[in-house]
Amino acid sequence: MTSQATKHRLGKVFGLGLGPGDPELITLKALRLLRACPVVAYPAPEGGASFARRIVARWLSPAQREIVIAVPIESARFPAQAVYDRAAGEIAAELAAGRDVAVLCQGDPFFYGSFMYLFGRLAERHAVEVVPGVSSLTACAAASGAPLAAREDTLLVLPASLSEQLLLCRLAEVDAAAIIKLGRHFAKVRAVLERLGLAAEARYVERASIAGEERVLPLAAVGAETVPYFSMILLHRRGAAWR
Amino acid sequence: MTSQATKHRLGKVFGLGLGPGDPELITLKALRLLRACPVVAYPAPEGGASFARRIVARWLSPAQREIVIAVPIESARFPAQAVYDRAAGEIAAELAAGRDVAVLCQGDPFFYGSFMYLFGRLAERHAVEVVPGVSSLTACAAASGAPLAAREDTLLVLPASLSEQLLLCRLAEVDAAAIIKLGRHFAKVRAVLERLGLAAEARYVERASIAGEERVLPLAAVGAETVPYFSMILLHRRGAAWR
Repeated sequence: MTSQATKHRLGKVFGLGLGPGDPELITLKALRLLRACPVVAYPAPEGGASFARRIVARWLSPAQREIVIAVPIESARFPAQAVYDRAAGEIAAELAAGRDVAVLCQGDPFFYGSFMYLFGRLAERHAVEVVPGVSSLTACAAASGAPLAAREDTLLVLPASLSEQLLLCRLAEVDAAAIIKLGRHFAKVRAVLERLGLAAEARYVERASIAGEERVLPLAAVGAETVPYFSMILLHRRGAAWR
Repeated sequence: MTSQATKHRLGKVFGLGLGPGDPELITLKALRLLRACPVVAYPAPEGGASFARRIVARWLSPAQREIVIAVPIESARFPAQAVYDRAAGEIAAELAAGRDVAVLCQGDPFFYGSFMYLFGRLAERHAVEVVPGVSSLTACAAASGAPLAAREDTLLVLPASLSEQLLLCRLAEVDAAAIIKLGRHFAKVRAVLERLGLAAEARYVERASIAGEERVLPLAAVGAETVPYFSMILLHRRGAAWR
Protein backbone atom coordinates (compact mmCIF):
# COMPACT_ATOMS: atom_id res chain seq x y z
CA MET A 1 0.00 0.00 0.00
CA THR A 2 2.83 2.37 0.76
CA SER A 3 4.41 1.52 -2.58
CA GLN A 4 1.08 2.08 -4.36
CA ALA A 5 0.76 5.48 -2.72
CA THR A 6 4.33 6.28 -3.67
CA LYS A 7 3.74 5.24 -7.24
CA HIS A 8 0.77 7.54 -7.58
CA ARG A 9 2.18 10.51 -5.75
CA LEU A 10 1.95 13.58 -7.96
CA GLY A 11 4.91 15.88 -8.28
CA LYS A 12 5.00 19.44 -7.00
CA VAL A 13 6.25 22.64 -8.60
CA PHE A 14 8.64 24.81 -6.61
CA GLY A 15 9.06 28.36 -7.85
CA LEU A 16 12.49 29.07 -6.41
CA GLY A 17 13.56 32.66 -5.84
CA LEU A 18 17.34 32.56 -6.33
CA GLY A 19 18.12 36.17 -5.48
CA PRO A 20 19.65 38.92 -7.62
CA GLY A 21 22.71 37.14 -8.98
CA ASP A 22 25.33 36.50 -6.29
CA PRO A 23 25.09 32.72 -5.68
CA GLU A 24 25.63 33.40 -1.97
CA LEU A 25 22.33 35.31 -1.85
CA ILE A 26 20.34 32.12 -2.36
CA THR A 27 18.37 30.98 0.69
CA LEU A 28 18.95 27.72 2.52
CA LYS A 29 15.44 26.65 1.53
CA ALA A 30 15.88 27.30 -2.18
CA LEU A 31 19.20 25.44 -2.14
CA ARG A 32 17.69 22.43 -0.34
CA LEU A 33 14.78 22.21 -2.79
CA LEU A 34 17.01 22.81 -5.81
CA ARG A 35 19.11 19.80 -4.85
CA ALA A 36 16.09 17.63 -4.07
CA CYS A 37 14.18 18.13 -7.32
CA PRO A 38 14.90 15.63 -10.12
CA VAL A 39 13.81 18.18 -12.72
CA VAL A 40 14.75 21.86 -13.07
CA ALA A 41 13.19 24.31 -15.52
CA TYR A 42 14.36 27.80 -16.35
CA PRO A 43 13.87 30.57 -18.90
CA ALA A 44 16.65 31.48 -21.29
CA PRO A 45 16.74 33.98 -24.15
CA GLU A 46 16.46 32.03 -27.41
CA GLY A 47 19.97 30.97 -28.36
CA GLY A 48 21.49 32.45 -25.18
CA ALA A 49 22.46 31.42 -21.68
CA SER A 50 20.01 31.39 -18.76
CA PHE A 51 20.84 33.91 -16.09
CA ALA A 52 18.82 31.99 -13.47
CA ARG A 53 20.72 28.78 -14.27
CA ARG A 54 24.05 30.61 -14.01
CA ILE A 55 23.28 31.61 -10.41
CA VAL A 56 22.98 27.98 -9.29
CA ALA A 57 25.09 26.14 -11.88
CA ARG A 58 27.55 24.95 -9.22
CA TRP A 59 24.81 23.03 -7.41
CA LEU A 60 23.15 21.29 -10.35
CA SER A 61 23.74 17.58 -10.86
CA PRO A 62 24.05 15.75 -14.20
CA ALA A 63 21.31 13.46 -12.88
CA GLN A 64 18.78 16.30 -12.99
CA ARG A 65 16.69 16.72 -16.10
CA GLU A 66 16.75 20.30 -17.38
CA ILE A 67 13.82 21.93 -19.16
CA VAL A 68 14.91 25.05 -21.04
CA ILE A 69 12.15 27.60 -21.64
CA ALA A 70 13.52 29.38 -24.72
CA VAL A 71 11.94 32.83 -24.76
CA PRO A 72 12.13 34.64 -28.12
CA ILE A 73 14.18 37.83 -27.74
CA GLU A 74 11.67 40.20 -29.29
CA SER A 75 8.95 39.11 -26.90
CA ALA A 76 11.15 38.99 -23.82
CA ARG A 77 9.00 41.56 -22.06
CA PHE A 78 5.71 39.95 -22.89
CA PRO A 79 4.85 36.31 -22.64
CA ALA A 80 5.31 34.19 -25.69
CA GLN A 81 2.10 32.27 -25.16
CA ALA A 82 3.08 29.19 -27.15
CA VAL A 83 6.45 28.94 -25.40
CA TYR A 84 4.87 28.96 -21.95
CA ASP A 85 2.08 26.63 -23.03
CA ARG A 86 4.66 24.09 -24.15
CA ALA A 87 6.81 24.51 -21.03
CA ALA A 88 3.77 24.11 -18.78
CA GLY A 89 2.90 20.94 -20.68
CA GLU A 90 6.39 19.52 -20.22
CA ILE A 91 6.34 20.35 -16.53
CA ALA A 92 2.86 18.88 -16.09
CA ALA A 93 4.08 15.60 -17.62
CA GLU A 94 6.88 15.42 -15.05
CA LEU A 95 4.40 16.11 -12.24
CA ALA A 96 2.07 13.40 -13.49
CA ALA A 97 5.01 10.99 -13.37
CA GLY A 98 5.51 11.90 -9.72
CA ARG A 99 8.58 14.06 -10.16
CA ASP A 100 9.01 17.42 -8.44
CA VAL A 101 10.05 20.32 -10.64
CA ALA A 102 12.12 23.31 -9.51
CA VAL A 103 11.51 26.41 -11.61
CA LEU A 104 14.54 28.69 -11.34
CA CYS A 105 13.69 32.37 -10.88
CA GLN A 106 16.17 35.23 -10.69
CA GLY A 107 15.23 37.48 -7.79
CA ASP A 108 11.79 36.68 -6.41
CA PRO A 109 9.22 34.63 -8.39
CA PHE A 110 6.28 36.94 -7.60
CA PHE A 111 8.09 40.29 -8.03
CA TYR A 112 7.72 41.04 -11.75
CA GLY A 113 9.00 37.55 -12.55
CA SER A 114 8.28 35.48 -15.67
CA PHE A 115 7.39 32.63 -13.28
CA MET A 116 3.87 34.06 -13.22
CA TYR A 117 3.26 32.73 -16.73
CA LEU A 118 3.88 29.17 -15.57
CA PHE A 119 2.03 29.81 -12.33
CA GLY A 120 -1.02 30.96 -14.25
CA ARG A 121 -0.97 27.76 -16.29
CA LEU A 122 -0.20 25.25 -13.53
CA ALA A 123 -1.52 26.46 -10.17
CA GLU A 124 -5.13 25.44 -10.63
CA ARG A 125 -4.43 21.78 -11.28
CA HIS A 126 -1.08 21.18 -9.60
CA ALA A 127 0.59 21.77 -6.24
CA VAL A 128 2.74 24.88 -6.53
CA GLU A 129 4.89 26.35 -3.76
CA VAL A 130 6.65 29.66 -4.13
CA VAL A 131 9.88 30.17 -2.21
CA PRO A 132 10.52 33.90 -1.89
CA GLY A 133 13.97 35.21 -2.74
CA VAL A 134 15.99 38.37 -2.31
CA SER A 135 14.53 40.74 -4.89
CA SER A 136 16.48 43.12 -7.10
CA LEU A 137 14.74 45.95 -5.23
CA THR A 138 16.52 45.42 -1.92
CA ALA A 139 19.71 44.16 -3.56
CA CYS A 140 19.97 47.45 -5.47
CA ALA A 141 19.31 49.44 -2.28
CA ALA A 142 22.12 47.56 -0.52
CA ALA A 143 24.43 48.24 -3.48
CA SER A 144 23.51 51.92 -3.53
CA GLY A 145 24.36 52.34 0.15
CA ALA A 146 21.13 54.03 1.20
CA PRO A 147 17.85 52.84 2.67
CA LEU A 148 15.07 52.19 0.17
CA ALA A 149 12.27 53.41 2.42
CA ALA A 150 11.85 54.33 6.06
CA ARG A 151 9.20 55.07 8.66
CA GLU A 152 6.11 56.55 6.95
CA ASP A 153 7.57 56.71 3.44
CA THR A 154 5.44 55.66 0.52
CA LEU A 155 7.50 53.59 -1.90
CA LEU A 156 6.52 53.24 -5.54
CA VAL A 157 7.86 50.66 -7.96
CA LEU A 158 7.42 51.66 -11.61
CA PRO A 159 8.40 49.82 -14.79
CA ALA A 160 10.44 52.12 -17.03
CA SER A 161 8.29 51.16 -20.00
CA LEU A 162 5.44 53.41 -18.80
CA SER A 163 4.75 56.55 -20.81
CA GLU A 164 6.52 59.81 -20.01
CA GLN A 165 3.20 61.33 -18.90
CA LEU A 166 2.42 58.49 -16.52
CA LEU A 167 5.94 58.51 -15.07
CA LEU A 168 5.71 62.28 -14.48
CA CYS A 169 2.32 61.95 -12.85
CA ARG A 170 3.20 59.02 -10.58
CA LEU A 171 6.61 60.27 -9.50
CA ALA A 172 5.33 63.72 -8.58
CA GLU A 173 3.87 62.57 -5.29
CA VAL A 174 5.86 59.74 -3.76
CA ASP A 175 8.56 59.79 -1.10
CA ALA A 176 10.69 57.02 -2.55
CA ALA A 177 10.68 55.21 -5.87
CA ALA A 178 12.35 52.45 -7.83
CA ILE A 179 12.12 52.63 -11.61
CA ILE A 180 12.85 49.13 -12.83
CA LYS A 181 13.70 47.34 -16.09
CA LEU A 182 15.36 50.41 -17.58
CA GLY A 183 17.08 49.08 -20.73
CA ARG A 184 16.23 51.24 -23.73
CA HIS A 185 13.91 53.42 -21.62
CA PHE A 186 16.74 55.01 -19.64
CA ALA A 187 16.99 58.33 -21.52
CA LYS A 188 13.23 58.91 -21.19
CA VAL A 189 13.30 58.21 -17.46
CA ARG A 190 16.31 60.45 -16.87
CA ALA A 191 14.55 63.30 -18.70
CA VAL A 192 11.46 62.85 -16.52
CA LEU A 193 13.54 62.95 -13.34
CA GLU A 194 15.39 66.05 -14.53
CA ARG A 195 12.06 67.76 -15.20
CA LEU A 196 10.89 66.90 -11.69
CA GLY A 197 14.16 68.10 -10.14
CA LEU A 198 14.85 64.59 -8.83
CA ALA A 199 17.78 63.58 -11.04
CA ALA A 200 20.62 64.85 -8.86
CA GLU A 201 19.73 62.66 -5.88
CA ALA A 202 18.80 59.55 -7.85
CA ARG A 203 21.15 56.57 -8.04
CA TYR A 204 21.50 54.19 -10.97
CA VAL A 205 22.26 50.52 -10.17
CA GLU A 206 22.94 47.71 -12.62
CA ARG A 207 23.63 44.00 -12.01
CA ALA A 208 23.44 44.41 -8.23
CA SER A 209 25.36 41.81 -6.20
CA ILE A 210 27.11 40.26 -9.22
CA ALA A 211 30.85 40.18 -8.59
CA GLY A 212 32.75 42.34 -11.04
CA GLU A 213 29.59 43.51 -12.83
CA GLU A 214 27.74 45.64 -10.27
CA ARG A 215 27.76 49.37 -11.07
CA VAL A 216 26.31 52.25 -9.05
CA LEU A 217 26.37 55.65 -10.73
CA PRO A 218 24.81 59.10 -10.60
CA LEU A 219 22.40 59.48 -13.53
CA ALA A 220 24.61 62.01 -15.30
CA ALA A 221 27.40 59.43 -15.57
CA VAL A 222 25.28 56.77 -17.30
CA GLY A 223 25.61 56.20 -21.05
CA ALA A 224 22.01 55.60 -22.15
CA GLU A 225 23.02 53.16 -24.89
CA THR A 226 24.76 50.81 -22.43
CA VAL A 227 21.91 50.34 -19.98
CA PRO A 228 20.84 46.70 -19.55
CA TYR A 229 17.30 45.50 -18.86
CA PHE A 230 18.32 44.38 -15.37
CA SER A 231 18.99 47.81 -13.92
CA MET A 232 17.04 50.34 -11.91
CA ILE A 233 17.00 53.89 -10.62
CA LEU A 234 16.38 54.47 -6.92
CA LEU A 235 15.36 57.81 -5.54
CA HIS A 236 14.29 59.27 -2.25
CA ARG A 237 12.65 62.67 -2.10
CA ARG A 238 13.07 63.28 1.61
CA GLY A 239 16.81 62.88 1.66
CA ALA A 240 18.28 61.32 4.74
CA ALA A 241 15.02 60.50 6.53
CA TRP A 242 16.76 57.82 8.58
CA ARG A 243 19.13 60.15 10.39
CA MET B 1 54.53 44.38 10.54
CA THR B 2 51.75 41.92 9.79
CA SER B 3 50.95 41.74 13.47
CA GLN B 4 50.94 45.54 13.71
CA ALA B 5 48.54 45.72 10.77
CA THR B 6 46.35 43.05 12.34
CA LYS B 7 46.31 44.87 15.63
CA HIS B 8 45.16 48.07 14.02
CA ARG B 9 42.60 46.61 11.66
CA LEU B 10 39.25 48.27 12.26
CA GLY B 11 36.13 46.17 12.50
CA LYS B 12 33.29 46.28 10.00
CA VAL B 13 29.53 46.41 10.51
CA PHE B 14 27.40 43.91 8.61
CA GLY B 15 23.69 44.71 8.41
CA LEU B 16 22.37 41.20 7.90
CA GLY B 17 18.97 40.73 6.31
CA LEU B 18 17.68 37.51 7.90
CA GLY B 19 14.44 37.17 5.96
CA PRO B 20 10.83 37.21 7.19
CA GLY B 21 11.02 34.63 9.98
CA ASP B 22 11.54 31.11 8.66
CA PRO B 23 15.18 30.34 9.55
CA GLU B 24 15.49 28.51 6.22
CA LEU B 25 14.91 31.80 4.39
CA ILE B 26 18.26 33.17 5.52
CA THR B 27 20.83 33.51 2.71
CA LEU B 28 24.11 31.61 2.59
CA LYS B 29 25.94 34.94 2.83
CA ALA B 30 24.11 36.15 5.92
CA LEU B 31 24.70 32.79 7.61
CA ARG B 32 28.42 32.83 6.80
CA LEU B 33 28.85 36.37 8.14
CA LEU B 34 26.68 35.69 11.19
CA ARG B 35 28.98 32.83 12.17
CA ALA B 36 32.15 34.81 11.44
CA CYS B 37 31.37 37.90 13.52
CA PRO B 38 32.57 37.88 17.14
CA VAL B 39 29.84 40.39 18.07
CA VAL B 40 26.14 40.39 17.22
CA ALA B 41 23.74 43.26 17.90
CA TYR B 42 19.96 43.20 17.60
CA PRO B 43 16.89 45.20 18.59
CA ALA B 44 14.45 43.83 21.13
CA PRO B 45 11.34 45.38 22.64
CA GLU B 46 12.22 46.54 26.16
CA GLY B 47 11.73 43.55 28.46
CA GLY B 48 10.84 41.22 25.56
CA ALA B 49 12.51 38.76 23.20
CA SER B 50 14.17 39.80 19.95
CA PHE B 51 12.44 38.49 16.87
CA ALA B 52 15.59 38.90 14.76
CA ARG B 53 17.60 36.88 17.29
CA ARG B 54 14.96 34.15 17.34
CA ILE B 55 15.39 33.61 13.58
CA VAL B 56 19.06 32.72 13.96
CA ALA B 57 19.25 31.49 17.56
CA ARG B 58 20.31 28.00 16.44
CA TRP B 59 23.46 29.37 14.81
CA LEU B 60 24.70 31.67 17.59
CA SER B 61 27.68 30.62 19.65
CA PRO B 62 28.26 31.29 23.37
CA ALA B 63 31.59 32.79 22.30
CA GLN B 64 29.84 35.66 20.52
CA ARG B 65 29.22 38.85 22.44
CA GLU B 66 25.59 40.00 22.16
CA ILE B 67 24.58 43.66 22.22
CA VAL B 68 20.87 44.04 22.94
CA ILE B 69 19.31 47.25 21.64
CA ALA B 70 16.35 47.58 24.03
CA VAL B 71 13.75 49.70 22.22
CA PRO B 72 11.06 51.21 24.48
CA ILE B 73 7.64 49.87 23.49
CA GLU B 74 5.87 53.19 23.13
CA SER B 75 8.47 54.48 20.70
CA ALA B 76 8.76 51.27 18.72
CA ARG B 77 7.66 53.02 15.55
CA PHE B 78 9.95 55.99 15.94
CA PRO B 79 13.58 55.92 16.89
CA ALA B 80 14.42 56.28 20.52
CA GLN B 81 17.35 58.57 19.87
CA ALA B 82 19.18 57.88 23.10
CA VAL B 83 18.84 54.11 22.68
CA TYR B 84 20.36 54.16 19.21
CA ASP B 85 23.05 56.64 20.23
CA ARG B 86 24.14 54.27 22.98
CA ALA B 87 23.99 51.19 20.74
CA ALA B 88 26.01 52.96 18.03
CA GLY B 89 28.57 53.86 20.67
CA GLU B 90 28.84 50.28 21.89
CA ILE B 91 29.21 49.02 18.33
CA ALA B 92 31.80 51.69 17.49
CA ALA B 93 33.89 50.56 20.49
CA GLU B 94 33.91 46.99 19.14
CA LEU B 95 34.92 48.23 15.69
CA ALA B 96 37.74 50.30 17.17
CA ALA B 97 39.00 47.14 18.88
CA GLY B 98 39.10 45.42 15.48
CA ARG B 99 36.01 43.25 15.96
CA ASP B 100 33.38 42.86 13.23
CA VAL B 101 29.77 43.35 14.32
CA ALA B 102 26.74 41.63 12.76
CA VAL B 103 23.54 43.62 13.19
CA LEU B 104 20.59 41.25 12.95
CA CYS B 105 17.70 42.55 10.85
CA GLN B 106 14.38 40.81 10.29
CA GLY B 107 13.53 40.95 6.58
CA ASP B 108 15.78 43.33 4.69
CA PRO B 109 17.87 46.02 6.46
CA PHE B 110 16.98 48.80 3.99
CA PHE B 111 13.26 48.00 3.56
CA TYR B 112 11.61 49.95 6.40
CA GLY B 113 14.08 48.44 8.86
CA SER B 114 15.25 49.91 12.16
CA PHE B 115 18.80 49.20 10.96
CA MET B 116 18.71 52.61 9.29
CA TYR B 117 19.04 54.30 12.70
CA LEU B 118 22.38 52.57 13.27
CA PHE B 119 23.38 53.07 9.65
CA GLY B 120 22.79 56.81 9.95
CA ARG B 121 25.01 56.94 13.02
CA LEU B 122 27.84 54.65 11.85
CA ALA B 123 28.18 54.75 8.05
CA GLU B 124 30.14 57.98 7.78
CA ARG B 125 33.00 56.90 10.00
CA HIS B 126 32.97 53.10 9.76
CA ALA B 127 32.88 50.40 7.11
CA VAL B 128 29.28 49.18 6.77
CA GLU B 129 28.09 46.44 4.43
CA VAL B 130 24.42 45.66 3.97
CA VAL B 131 23.49 42.10 3.05
CA PRO B 132 20.03 42.14 1.49
CA GLY B 133 17.47 39.64 2.74
CA VAL B 134 14.10 38.27 1.71
CA SER B 135 11.68 41.09 2.58
CA SER B 136 8.25 40.66 4.12
CA LEU B 137 6.85 42.03 0.87
CA THR B 138 7.72 39.04 -1.27
CA ALA B 139 7.32 36.57 1.60
CA CYS B 140 3.71 37.74 2.03
CA ALA B 141 3.09 37.46 -1.71
CA ALA B 142 4.39 33.88 -1.67
CA ALA B 143 2.14 33.10 1.31
CA SER B 144 -0.88 34.67 -0.38
CA GLY B 145 -0.45 32.52 -3.48
CA ALA B 146 -0.59 35.34 -6.02
CA PRO B 147 2.00 37.48 -7.81
CA LEU B 148 2.73 40.83 -6.19
CA ALA B 149 3.21 42.68 -9.47
CA ALA B 150 3.60 41.80 -13.11
CA ARG B 151 4.58 43.30 -16.47
CA GLU B 152 3.76 47.04 -16.47
CA ASP B 153 2.11 47.14 -13.05
CA THR B 154 2.86 50.01 -10.73
CA LEU B 155 3.34 48.71 -7.20
CA LEU B 156 2.90 50.97 -4.19
CA VAL B 157 4.05 50.22 -0.65
CA LEU B 158 2.21 52.26 1.98
CA PRO B 159 2.60 52.27 5.76
CA ALA B 160 -0.79 51.77 7.40
CA SER B 161 -0.14 54.70 9.74
CA LEU B 162 -0.86 57.22 6.96
CA SER B 163 -4.06 59.24 7.26
CA GLU B 164 -7.31 57.97 5.79
CA GLN B 165 -7.25 60.80 3.24
CA LEU B 166 -3.75 60.01 2.06
CA LEU B 167 -4.49 56.28 1.84
CA LEU B 168 -7.60 57.00 -0.24
CA CYS B 169 -5.71 59.33 -2.52
CA ARG B 170 -2.70 57.07 -3.09
CA LEU B 171 -4.63 53.82 -3.49
CA ALA B 172 -7.02 55.30 -6.04
CA GLU B 173 -4.54 55.08 -8.89
CA VAL B 174 -2.19 52.13 -8.51
CA ASP B 175 -2.32 48.66 -10.03
CA ALA B 176 -0.97 46.79 -7.04
CA ALA B 177 -0.34 47.76 -3.45
CA ALA B 178 1.01 46.49 -0.16
CA ILE B 179 -0.19 48.23 2.99
CA ILE B 180 2.35 47.36 5.65
CA LYS B 181 2.70 47.52 9.44
CA LEU B 182 -1.04 47.24 10.02
CA GLY B 183 -1.36 46.67 13.77
CA ARG B 184 -3.90 49.06 15.29
CA HIS B 185 -4.48 50.73 11.90
CA PHE B 186 -6.23 47.71 10.39
CA ALA B 187 -9.85 48.90 10.78
CA LYS B 188 -9.05 52.25 9.15
CA VAL B 189 -7.33 50.57 6.21
CA ARG B 190 -10.15 48.09 5.71
CA ALA B 191 -12.67 50.95 5.66
CA VAL B 192 -10.61 52.77 3.01
CA LEU B 193 -10.43 49.66 0.83
CA GLU B 194 -14.18 49.09 1.18
CA ARG B 195 -14.82 52.66 0.10
CA LEU B 196 -12.62 52.15 -2.97
CA GLY B 197 -14.29 48.85 -3.82
CA LEU B 198 -11.00 47.02 -3.36
CA ALA B 199 -11.72 45.06 -0.17
CA ALA B 200 -13.12 41.90 -1.73
CA GLU B 201 -9.97 41.08 -3.71
CA ALA B 202 -7.48 42.09 -1.04
CA ARG B 203 -5.63 39.49 1.00
CA TYR B 204 -4.47 39.86 4.59
CA VAL B 205 -1.21 38.14 5.58
CA GLU B 206 0.38 37.95 9.03
CA ARG B 207 3.66 36.38 10.16
CA ALA B 208 4.48 35.13 6.67
CA SER B 209 6.77 32.08 6.52
CA ILE B 210 6.72 31.41 10.26
CA ALA B 211 5.75 27.79 10.87
CA GLY B 212 2.44 27.46 12.69
CA GLU B 213 1.90 31.25 12.84
CA GLU B 214 1.37 32.31 9.23
CA ARG B 215 -2.20 33.35 8.45
CA VAL B 216 -3.73 34.41 5.13
CA LEU B 217 -7.30 35.69 5.26
CA PRO B 218 -9.84 37.71 3.31
CA LEU B 219 -10.27 41.10 4.99
CA ALA B 220 -13.79 40.32 6.17
CA ALA B 221 -12.48 37.41 8.27
CA VAL B 222 -9.91 39.46 10.18
CA GLY B 223 -10.62 40.54 13.77
CA ALA B 224 -9.25 44.09 13.90
CA GLU B 225 -8.20 43.79 17.54
CA THR B 226 -5.93 40.79 16.87
CA VAL B 227 -3.83 42.30 14.07
CA PRO B 228 -0.09 42.37 14.82
CA TYR B 229 2.35 45.04 13.65
CA PHE B 230 4.06 42.51 11.36
CA SER B 231 1.19 42.03 8.94
CA MET B 232 0.15 43.49 5.61
CA ILE B 233 -2.63 43.71 3.08
CA LEU B 234 -1.86 42.90 -0.55
CA LEU B 235 -4.10 43.94 -3.38
CA HIS B 236 -4.10 43.87 -7.13
CA ARG B 237 -6.56 45.96 -9.07
CA ARG B 238 -6.16 44.23 -12.42
CA GLY B 239 -7.01 40.79 -11.14
CA ALA B 240 -5.19 37.94 -12.78
CA ALA B 241 -2.84 39.99 -14.99
CA TRP B 242 -0.41 37.10 -15.18
CA ARG B 243 -2.73 34.68 -16.97
